[in-house]
Amino acid sequence: MVAELVSVGTELLLGNIVNTNASYLAEQCANLGFSVYYQSVVGDNEERMYEVIKTAVDRSDIVILSGGLGPTQDDITKNVAAKIMGREMVEDAHTRERIQGYFDRLYASHSDKEITENNWLQAQIPKDAHVLDNENGTAPGLIIEENEKCVVLLPGPPGELIPMFDDQVYPYLEKKQPEIIYSRMVKICGIGESAAETMIQDMIEQQTNPTIAPYAKTGEVHLRVTAKANSKEEAKKLINPILKELKLRFGKYIYTIKENVTLEENVVALLKKKGWTLTTAESCTGGALAARLINVSGISEVYEEGFITYSNQAKNKYLKVKKSTLKSVGAVSAKTAKEMARGGCKAADADVCVAITGIAGPNGGTAEKPVGLVYIACCANGKIKVEENHFNGNRSRIREQAVVSALTLLRNCLS
Amino acid sequence: MVAELVSVGTELLLGNIVNTNASYLAEQCANLGFSVYYQSVVGDNEERMYEVIKTAVDRSDIVILSGGLGPTQDDITKNVAAKIMGREMVEDAHTRERIQGYFDRLYASHSDKEITENNWLQAQIPKDAHVLDNENGTAPGLIIEENEKCVVLLPGPPGELIPMFDDQVYPYLEKKQPEIIYSRMVKICGIGESAAETMIQDMIEQQTNPTIAPYAKTGEVHLRVTAKANSKEEAKKLINPILKELKLRFGKYIYTIKENVTLEENVVALLKKKGWTLTTAESCTGGALAARLINVSGISEVYEEGFITYSNQAKNKYLKVKKSTLKSVGAVSAKTAKEMARGGCKAADADVCVAITGIAGPNGGTAEKPVGLVYIACCANGKIKVEENHFNGNRSRIREQAVVSALTLLRNCLS
Repeated sequence: MVAELVSVGTELLLGNIVNTNASYLAEQCANLGFSVYYQSVVGDNEERMYEVIKTAVDRSDIVILSGGLGPTQDDITKNVAAKIMGREMVEDAHTRERIQGYFDRLYASHSDKEITENNWLQAQIPKDAHVLDNENGTAPGLIIEENEKCVVLLPGPPGELIPMFDDQVYPYLEKKQPEIIYSRMVKICGIGESAAETMIQDMIEQQTNPTIAPYAKTGEVHLRVTAKANSKEEAKKLINPILKELKLRFGKYIYTIKENVTLEENVVALLKKKGWTLTTAESCTGGALAARLINVSGISEVYEEGFITYSNQAKNKYLKVKKSTLKSVGAVSAKTAKEMARGGCKAADADVCVAITGIAGPNGGTAEKPVGLVYIACCANGKIKVEENHFNGNRSRIREQAVVSALTLLRNCLS
Repeated sequence: MVAELVSVGTELLLGNIVNTNASYLAEQCANLGFSVYYQSVVGDNEERMYEVIKTAVDRSDIVILSGGLGPTQDDITKNVAAKIMGREMVEDAHTRERIQGYFDRLYASHSDKEITENNWLQAQIPKDAHVLDNENGTAPGLIIEENEKCVVLLPGPPGELIPMFDDQVYPYLEKKQPEIIYSRMVKICGIGESAAETMIQDMIEQQTNPTIAPYAKTGEVHLRVTAKANSKEEAKKLINPILKELKLRFGKYIYTIKENVTLEENVVALLKKKGWTLTTAESCTGGALAARLINVSGISEVYEEGFITYSNQAKNKYLKVKKSTLKSVGAVSAKTAKEMARGGCKAADADVCVAITGIAGPNGGTAEKPVGLVYIACCANGKIKVEENHFNGNRSRIREQAVVSALTLLRNCLS
């Protein structure tokens, strides 16, 4: 089954809002095992909307439209969809009643307010359409089926669209899917995107079912392995040899094969397993590493405190980095990073400390110590490792990469 | 001029990521005075990509493509675009050199690492295309012009796309616009989006030229005021009365009317003006406030060190929050926030300290102190202010809102 998404809205065309509905619906379609080949955004111009929806209906089995169902003049989505599907518009008594009820509740304490006439437009539906009650607004959703084509119309506000999709559309569409889709996410850190892909080039070239799709995140590579089959068991059987092969090739660089586990969660889990506590000592990243770790709910078990030591003085004051070190090799050096990490463990009475010191730019670089030079040290249970990194990009890119590299080094020191 | 956006990426079709590039580019097109009627997303299937790009080129003057420029087999966008624009692919010596340089820097301290062969694919460009150097990655951007049609190709990662668009594409496209488009961004903090919109509903309803477009950011509202005119002077004349009216309505809530000034930059500038130094004391945000402040290059003038005190013990150890306070009213309380702020000033010998303590969830909430309860205190030159906040959303949304509210409170205390 091929599904296609069409979002209607001038605010999307103007960039006023981000199209989170599309990513939500796309993910749900993937879960349902539908292939999505196209997504489009169009405004409330009738001619252009007709063209976009008609193209979608012609090339896909299921078209999910969102937006343009409201009470205003601009809200023409259902009329255009009805025209394409060859249906006339009729009033739906049930929806009229629901709209009345909605406003009765809303205006319960404002007896002077009246329902404006345009609201009744929302009770107009394409003849014989399946009505989806809107529990969070007035515009109902609609499903029109004709000649093996299915058009789903949803309201634009995510607070209305998501519950309507989850409760009513997902179960409706699920019945259309004979095949099961099952996928696993292999998450890798410490190898670049292109290097990782080269390592599995042959597998990607040979793939049919399951498929392997690489996704690059800053400092990480995620590989989604997806199988289609008649049952979950069969899909798992298809996926398992691929997972085995990926584990063989990437080994310790794989930190999880679970969709929802992040690198920081993996690191925190390793710490908990060892019963070790962690602290952080940051200069150029200025708290960004700690902030990322504290994304993990329940981190308080292993993390109590962290240091943001931006100045030399602070590095000495809290972490006991020697003044002679700062003077002789400078704050951005392997030696300072090591002293920060060791000093952090001591000051926080922690088993592990990750320290970051570098030049994030755009100023402060020299020929000897250019912008992007970042030293990361990890002191774990008395053993210390330090890495010299040369990152590319602007200030925020350099800092982001430093944070991921610090998490990767920390993970290496724990496993 | 009609511009159209085409985003390439399986991860968009699968809903793995949200298409923030499209909203960014749509906003920039609006800034440039281009009309955007369509946006599309397509995957890396050559036939479908060809169809989508061809349709876009046929119906629009400028087509901005993003994604699919990387070093992997899936990255076919530029080949498809070259085919549509009738260009053969050739190697670009300049880009080859840049890729070499990128990896030389990256691998400076890892002499065992080699550049994988597929990276050189990124030096292949459509003949006579205008090359856009990528300062934050290896894949260059490209502009192909033919028969009054202009196709712009940009890398998919926002950290590469945004600076490339801002620095190179915007000035290039600006020249295509015969009318002058001039806009100012009025940035507001401390007022919610819907409240802000209600305050200017009448202005939005009456608008023709200039227009006012609201953009909601976490904890901020940005209003873009845009005028079209034959000269910059004329456009400014159209905009000035609107700016005056907005200043009248929003007053001190406006922190800048400059496009590129962020809230943290505004705060750092205010600190420099006063000659005051700043520190931070964070519990639930765990360094995110400091990390955001340290986005500002040159912050070392006013910021030397910060505290991440996640545990009660750390709050007492570094910030001298009284054990009796922690025992009687708890870590998430106005009193603790105030003691953290006061203690932070003292410990860091700083003029100002912002402190954050709250429950980011998903666990740890009670009926009395629910998830989302966050106290923020600011001690500035001995004077202290504290605010109780109730934020909605998940852990990361709550922490984000806490950071912006802390910056807003800090700003109030400085101005």
